[in-house]
Amino acid sequence: MPHHTTGHQMSDKMQHCIANCTECHNICLETANYCIEMGGKHAEAGHVRLLLDCAQICANCADFMLRASPLHPRVCGVCAEVCEQCAVSCEQLGDDEQMKRCAEVCRRCAGSCRVMAGMKM
Amino acid sequence: MPHHTTGHQMSDKMQHCIANCTECHNICLETANYCIEMGGKHAEAGHVRLLLDCAQICANCADFMLRASPLHPRVCGVCAEVCEQCAVSCEQLGDDEQMKRCAEVCRRCAGSCRVMAGMKM
Amino acid sequence: MPHHTTGHQMSDKMQHCIANCTECHNICLETANYCIEMGGKHAEAGHVRLLLDCAQICANCADFMLRASPLHPRVCGVCAEVCEQCAVSCEQLGDDEQMKRCAEVCRRCAGSCRVMAGMKM
Amino acid sequence: MPHHTTGHQMSDKMQHCIANCTECHNICLETANYCIEMGGKHAEAGHVRLLLDCAQICANCADFMLRASPLHPRVCGVCAEVCEQCAVSCEQLGDDEQMKRCAEVCRRCAGSCRVMAGMKM
Repeated sequence: MPHHTTGHQMSDKMQHCIANCTECHNICLETANYCIEMGGKHAEAGHVRLLLDCAQICANCADFMLRASPLHPRVCGVCAEVCEQCAVSCEQLGDDEQMKRCAEVCRRCAGSCRVMAGMKM
Repeated sequence: MPHHTTGHQMSDKMQHCIANCTECHNICLETANYCIEMGGKHAEAGHVRLLLDCAQICANCADFMLRASPLHPRVCGVCAEVCEQCAVSCEQLGDDEQMKRCAEVCRRCAGSCRVMAGMKM
Repeated sequence: MPHHTTGHQMSDKMQHCIANCTECHNICLETANYCIEMGGKHAEAGHVRLLLDCAQICANCADFMLRASPLHPRVCGVCAEVCEQCAVSCEQLGDDEQMKRCAEVCRRCAGSCRVMAGMKM
Repeated sequence: MPHHTTGHQMSDKMQHCIANCTECHNICLETANYCIEMGGKHAEAGHVRLLLDCAQICANCADFMLRASPLHPRVCGVCAEVCEQCAVSCEQLGDDEQMKRCAEVCRRCAGSCRVMAGMKM
């Protein structure tokens, strides 16, 4: 998603993180729906819940940055953790194209949220 | 934002509308913050409220499509109306780069939501 | 939830609808989680999706009223429809205490949203 | 808001925190709108942003608990901080009935979120 700010002075790092959170929100919600439709191990409660958790905290995290909230590093910190756990959960389901893509997006989002949270990579 | 679906069969039209809603959510939230910071006519209650309304219904609308909900055309219909009003409100503030960009994104989102809602363009 | 407004002049009807939407959001999200944990017919994709749709549009609808948005009747109209369909879906699963309570709350929320939307009861 | 769980075994402490977060979300959103309408010091960007941050993280926090997410203590921890800062910001505006009530609700929500986060009171 192109995201040019003019009015505000928003750092490239933050714009990048907003784009990652937005993409991660979208793929997690789509993947949750895919997993519920698949049934079986894909629809296991812990996995679906993690996808819904990740979708929600990513949207929230993006919104804190879009509002230029000084509290965004705190939300980014939690978001990084949720994304990381979601990536692991997707990888464990394994040989599935949707899961692989979702894990990849979650991992990338976790990385840029860690940067915004001031954590080490 | 690249958005390739593999598991699902999602139409290009729907993917396009999700991308538009996502972009519109983001710019409306960013613009609401910009307007509150600017103060004066930018921070007029009706205008800020419309930006917040538009940000929220766009996120909601994208999520209905990401869940492949059969009810998405109903939400797209309302979203189109809110986006349209938000575009008008931004245009009336006029000579401002942030407002112009926001109006443009809202107008584009309204258009693709109307398509998804089965309304005439 | 007690909800006394002082600053604003908010009608009893609207306060009532906000409380119904809030309660409906909460029970639908809780029920979605319950259904995913139960598995089987409870976890059928169409049913879970409807619970997630209903949870989200109810939160959105409450927020439009809390912002005193003039566009709230449009969102209330869609919310009433989603709640109605969700109530039916819960009733069809039948002999389950969680489903019965969820159906009841959805039906009540649909009723007060119809009033706010200016629809006939 | 009455909140009886049947299917799940949800602790009283968690039900209490969900109710507090829900109430806090609602009053913060209502108060943000009130402040934007009031203008002047009420509409100062930092204050309005904090009210919007608080409304959003409270909704998010309630949802993590409603989904019985094992990650809820992390979100509750951040929510407690945001609520605390929002309470202070409302108190500084002072002699206003809406601000007093909002500060009170934020402070109560912060307290029960700290409990859920496993922090000391």
